[in-house]
Amino acid sequence: MRVEIWSDVACPWCYIGKARFEQGLAAFANKDDVEVVFRSFELDPQYPKGQTVEVLPMLAKKYGMSVEQAKQAEARVAANAADAGLRYLADGRDHGNTFDIHRLLHFAKTRGKQNELLDLAYAANFAEERSVYDAERLVELAVQAGLDEAEVRAVLADEQAFADAVREDEREAQMLGANGVPFFVLDRKFGVSGGQPAEVFTQALEEAWAARTPEPLKVVGGTAPEGAVCGPDGCEIP
Amino acid sequence: MRVEIWSDVACPWCYIGKARFEQGLAAFANKDDVEVVFRSFELDPQYPKGQTVEVLPMLAKKYGMSVEQAKQAEARVAANAADAGLRYLADGRDHGNTFDIHRLLHFAKTRGKQNELLDLAYAANFAEERSVYDAERLVELAVQAGLDEAEVRAVLADEQAFADAVREDEREAQMLGANGVPFFVLDRKFGVSGGQPAEVFTQALEEAWAARTPEPLKVVGGTAPEGAVCGPDGCEIP
Repeated sequence: MRVEIWSDVACPWCYIGKARFEQGLAAFANKDDVEVVFRSFELDPQYPKGQTVEVLPMLAKKYGMSVEQAKQAEARVAANAADAGLRYLADGRDHGNTFDIHRLLHFAKTRGKQNELLDLAYAANFAEERSVYDAERLVELAVQAGLDEAEVRAVLADEQAFADAVREDEREAQMLGANGVPFFVLDRKFGVSGGQPAEVFTQALEEAWAARTPEPLKVVGGTAPEGAVCGPDGCEIP
Repeated sequence: MRVEIWSDVACPWCYIGKARFEQGLAAFANKDDVEVVFRSFELDPQYPKGQTVEVLPMLAKKYGMSVEQAKQAEARVAANAADAGLRYLADGRDHGNTFDIHRLLHFAKTRGKQNELLDLAYAANFAEERSVYDAERLVELAVQAGLDEAEVRAVLADEQAFADAVREDEREAQMLGANGVPFFVLDRKFGVSGGQPAEVFTQALEEAWAARTPEPLKVVGGTAPEGAVCGPDGCEIP
């Protein structure tokens, strides 16, 4: 079974939701047969690359509240994070454009290191006051995740590398009806919106598992003589 | 889009079919948005582990033909392989149990090296007279694929490691109606049976691409207040 998780490193509920999902997954009997893939979703794609802003004044402006009120709101998010076993800095974080992080997460997927890199990026952004809006920091995190430094630098230097993969994920999110993140899709049949309690994820996994009986496949190419196959009784001989 | 390919390293048409599929994929406009996953299918699961037999006498016995006739049949498979740009030894290969190779391919998937290992295993088995039915040879191939030797040895030594993943693939093959391999499944909607000509794969990829519009997802967990999400206009504040 396959779970796709649309998320953004700049998204607090994605950080918390990932931990809650993992708790829900741990309680699921067939957890060893679940493949998890992370998909790209930018919360703020228009934010200029290379610039950052402090989170609290940004939130205050966005919601028309005082910086003090924004800080209280962030403290409530931090309490949710703590419940999920996560450290969360309610103050001192920055915000910026996440396109390059998404490109790098796609590269990490090709090397089997996507989950590692995402965990490190979340920790840097939310728990450690280490900005992820900086190319050198991304190189550092990627190497820590087990990726090759020269390859990582090449991906970051080439703005086209994995750019289509990021955009394709975002198109798919739209097709699937995701207006916000985190957004969880199970076998392209079941969806969970938001960082829900762990039990909701366990329930969704159980429902998707029970619904696994596949639709009949549409056969392309028929059983032409060129469709040479091997079965338990041997191989077709040309 | 996602293509799953059920195959076995002992299967000549899987070796040839992989090359034909890759040719068909290369001619497909959206090839960069295609993810390929290899799934396990054992042609001869009852064959005792640790034993091998020469291929030609084995085929002669299986099909009730002379060894010379088996050799001629293998030469015709070799001609098909050559058409696909592959070297194929019609004589001198051995046959055995592939369960450990499948376990190792599952481990390689977790490290982003599945395709590399499979290519090396096919080449060893079909092109190079290097038996793949030998733990030390598997270690050698896995290291060549970029895997960590100690981790590879640990996987091979633990008979349970990835064993369920292999069996689950085989159950899924059955559910999907695959009686032989190679068996190609596109987005769990379209199927191609056998090592068909490259054009069939291109056509299947085009049909599956056109059919990508998803069914509406079944929502689990609703939009409970705990379903905290972030969208373009900001995050839910608890």
